[in-house]
Formats: sequence, structure tokens, C-alpha cells
Amino acid sequence: MYSIGIDLGGTNIAIGLCDSGLNIIDRDSIPTNSQRGPFAITADMAHLTEKIITRNNISLGDLDFVGIASPGTIDSENGIVSAAYNIKMMDFPMAEEFKKILPIERVLIANDANAAALGEALMGAGKNTKSSVMITLGTGVGGGIVIDGKIFAGGLNPYGAEIGHMVIKHGGRECTCGRRGCFEAYSSATALISMTKEKIAELKDKKIPSPLVDIAEKEGRVTGKTVFDARDSGDGYAGAVIDYYIEHLACGITNIINIFQPEVVEIGGGVCNQGDAILKPLREIADREQYTKTIKDKTKIVIATLKNDAGIIGAAALGR
Amino acid sequence: MYSIGIDLGGTNIAIGLCDSGLNIIDRDSIPTNSQRGPFAITADMAHLTEKIITRNNISLGDLDFVGIASPGTIDSENGIVSAAYNIKMMDFPMAEEFKKILPIERVLIANDANAAALGEALMGAGKNTKSSVMITLGTGVGGGIVIDGKIFAGGLNPYGAEIGHMVIKHGGRECTCGRRGCFEAYSSATALISMTKEKIAELKDKKIPSPLVDIAEKEGRVTGKTVFDARDSGDGYAGAVIDYYIEHLACGITNIINIFQPEVVEIGGGVCNQGDAILKPLREIADREQYTKTIKDKTKIVIATLKNDAGIIGAAALGR
Repeated sequence: MYSIGIDLGGTNIAIGLCDSGLNIIDRDSIPTNSQRGPFAITADMAHLTEKIITRNNISLGDLDFVGIASPGTIDSENGIVSAAYNIKMMDFPMAEEFKKILPIERVLIANDANAAALGEALMGAGKNTKSSVMITLGTGVGGGIVIDGKIFAGGLNPYGAEIGHMVIKHGGRECTCGRRGCFEAYSSATALISMTKEKIAELKDKKIPSPLVDIAEKEGRVTGKTVFDARDSGDGYAGAVIDYYIEHLACGITNIINIFQPEVVEIGGGVCNQGDAILKPLREIADREQYTKTIKDKTKIVIATLKNDAGIIGAAALGR
Repeated sequence: MYSIGIDLGGTNIAIGLCDSGLNIIDRDSIPTNSQRGPFAITADMAHLTEKIITRNNISLGDLDFVGIASPGTIDSENGIVSAAYNIKMMDFPMAEEFKKILPIERVLIANDANAAALGEALMGAGKNTKSSVMITLGTGVGGGIVIDGKIFAGGLNPYGAEIGHMVIKHGGRECTCGRRGCFEAYSSATALISMTKEKIAELKDKKIPSPLVDIAEKEGRVTGKTVFDARDSGDGYAGAVIDYYIEHLACGITNIINIFQPEVVEIGGGVCNQGDAILKPLREIADREQYTKTIKDKTKIVIATLKNDAGIIGAAALGR
């Protein structure tokens, strides 16, 4: 049997046709155009599904289910997008609307961070594990928890796993959620960029010459890569920003280890392109700080490997 | 069928004979005398089991299993106490040793905080829920997580659920675990007492007259109750200590809600005797700060009801 995984993003809708081994055998994508509203987006997802199975000579009957990874808070049980602000959906019965266009029995929806965690657990850096936590360092800090091979999204409702909104510094940096000191306010790519900009402003203000300021001015913008480039040019100020960033990232990850003791923590997002520059100090701190520092077989901290395919594969695995 | 629940504590061994409805129909207790070592303690637990079933005319065959709630890190799968420093046990095969003395097929062991969480979930403040988190504010901050009606103790190993060792203030107060800023370092009864003592020292140092200083001096000691008594006498300094304490307690609990969205968070420990003086401000902060502040059906924060029986009942439920 085949399954479809759709990663519904704010910019693009990416679809993958997967075989029973969860390999993506064909893929496609179209722009989301989120201002069109939920019905048009859902219709497009259904048509895209039809298109991809048709060109692979697969009938609807050979399709086990369609899985959709959507942003926002998702009521998976009823196939409803409860609230997804960036794609403008509120209490939208996505599964039901999808089925009206394409008559398929099972249309399953999960939060995108949760689906990505499942994908990574099954086919990525968490392959062959039963318990893992995926942390995506992007605009925010996305969290996905896999326990016993299944997504854990919460007890009372499926709005949990909000690891990014775990306060790690009471009274600290402001977070978009209204709290202060959230993991996200220290460890997202956005936070790294903010901290870099703050350092640049400070250096400029104090008229301290620095490669960090030079690089930012030359490039005309600050990205998550700027501090790393500056440190590679021997900039100690940039190094201090990176140390501060990694210290807080390690703090949040160590919390997760102390609570979940997962087999693997996978970190994803553009910042991870820095590889060992992030991973090495991160592991050192977590190793030293975790409650179970004396045990031999510890949680592995690794970089996620599926990149943008994690959501597609996770969605394509929702019905298993 | 009956089951036995044993709560092995640093001071006392408490035993309960439970019926199939998990009601304690008879109970007993003896001092632990932990310096005697693991074999003598285990023998005593077996003898106590024999004594309680004999006096209730129950045969070994009518006993479904014996459950033991032990401090420390427990390998439940193999019935081994991996490390329990306060009762001086290291890699001790407790289940096996117990069976040598009392021939019963099933002897099950769990960490005491986890067992208490299960007991509270089944028969206490979490009754009729499937997901709950119990937080005990004592010498440390104990955590127990129940997901789908079962204890969740960790993925890779059963040493997780260490909620007390989730950092809520990076770089903050020193914790016994070696980290700084742990939930435990702010929210245990020990932390409350330390913060009270610090305030008293400060007031004395500055020669500021205060009911807090007077009460502490009159009683000759500081307990978790001292600040509350002082505030009831109109002491604003004591009030500030309480506010600070509750703010951090609420921070940790809000983190737990954001991650687990449990149906109930039960808080236990002597500090909870303060009832609404703790509960009301705690609920207000958590209500305002949690990620899902707009949903109607939120996690309930309640005071645990089983007190010292939680461990016995949880242990007596381990085999279900």
C-alpha cells in the first residue's frame, strides 16, 4: 500500500507519495497562497494528491491514507485545524473538506512539528528508536515528542509538546507567547539573530571595531550564520554570543533529557548547518548537567537528517 | 484478588493490604533502619507482608502481587534498585531477594514519586483521569507522570520524570544535582525555608523589625510554615517571600502544562497545607501564562489528597 504525506507550510505545499517502506517515490509542490483561505488550499491539496497518484498509475484504492502536517493547533482525532494563524484557519474541518473533493476513507492531520518528529523518528536521525524528541530551531523552537513509537501531543488535548514555551530563565527575554524567558526566546534562529543584532548595536555604540560589525555591514543583513562567520574571522565578541546561545540551548535540551530520557534528541533548523560548532559544546554541557550524568548509555544528541522531508514522511506515516 | 503496596521510605516502611478496588483494608508500618542494609530491609518487607495477610486470613495464592515504592532510580523491568542513596542500596535485586523469603510470583518495584503519582491518579485527586502529573514539594521536588493511565518514567531508561531538575532560571540558585536554577532549587520546601532564612538574615542585618524575625526567634527554628504565619501577622517581607516562591512554582507548573497538557496537576507536600493561599495565586499565574490560555478546558491544578497513602496505593496498583 502507498500513502501520501503533505507538508502544508506557510509558503509551500509539499507532497510526497510514499511506498510501504516510507520512501518518497515521487514528489511535487505548489505555493500555499495562504490568503486564499482554507477551502481553496484544501482543494489544491486534494488535486495535488490526485495528480501525483495518477502520474504514478496508482488508484485511490491503492492509497492507504492521506496524511497532512499542518501548522497550528490540530485536533487530530476529528481532523480539524483548531487554529493556524499563519495559514488563516480557525476550527476548519480539513479532513472532511478534503474527502468531499477526493473520496478517500482516511485523511489524517497532525501538527507539523509533531509530524516532523515522527518522520525523523522513523526514517531520519531517530531511526530504530522508540523514544525521541525533535527540536527545530527556526522562527520559533518547535517541539515534537515520540513515545513508544507514537507522537505524544498532550493528555487533555493535543496542544502540548510546546517545548519552546518552557521557561528556562524566569524573568528573562520576552517571548511571543507572552511569557518571559522561554526556551524559544533564547534558542530559536530568531533569538540568535536578535542577540547578534544587540551585540552589533553595542559594539557600534561603544565604537569598538569588530569583524562582526564589518560582516553585518558588508552583507547588509544579519542571519543565523553571521556570528559564526565573524567568529571564524577571530571575533571574540561573536564567540561570546555563540557561547551564550549554546549554553541556553543546552539548558533546554538537558531539561528535556531529565524529563523524557529519550533515546535521541534530534535538532533541526538552519542553525544546525554549523554542525560540530553547535553539536560539540552542546553535548559537553548536556553530558555534564543532566541528572543521570553517571550512567553510560545516555540520550544521544544529533542533528536531524531529513531536513524538509521530515514533515512529508511523518505525515505519510500518520496512519500506521 | 488482593494486592500489597509497600512504601519504602528513609524513616519508615509502610504497608497496605488492598482489595481489588484499591481500598486499603489493613495497614502496618515498621522503622526502616536503613543502616541495616538492603537484605535486612527486604526481609522485613517480606515478613511484614506475611504478617498482614496472615492476620487477614488471606493466603499467598489470593495475592495478585506485591508492589514496592522505593526511593532512588529503579529498574522496574528487572525489579532492581539501581541507586537509592538514602537507604544505601546500589544495584540491588530487590524483587529477587523478596521472592527468596516469600514465594510469590510477582514482586514489582517502582520509584516512589512515580508510584505516588499512579496512586494519586487512580484513587486521589487525579481519579477518573488518564493523564496527570504529580509534583511533591518536599526536601526536593518529586515528579511523577501518568500518560494513558500508566507511569511514564522515561524512554531510554526509567530515570526520567525528573521535573525537579528542569532549570527554570538559568544561572540561578544552586541545586543539589549540580545545575543552577532547577525548579527544585526554587520550589521545594527546603528552598522555601532557605529563602525564608535569607530574608530573616537580611532583616536582622539591616536591623528592620519584623514579625517574621520575631516568629522565627520565638519558635527557635524556621519551617515551611514560618513565612505564612508571619504574613498572617501582616508582615510584608514574608509576603514578598511567598510571592517569589509561588511565582517560581507557577513557572515550573506552567512549563509542565505546556509540555504535557495533563488533565490534572496534583501538588503534594507539607507546603500544600496552606491550601488556597498557595492554590489561588498559582492558578492565576498558570492560567495567564500557559500557551493554551484561550482554551476553555484547561489543566486543573489541585492539591493531592492521598497524602502518605499515595505511595502505598500506587505500589498496590503496579501490577494492574
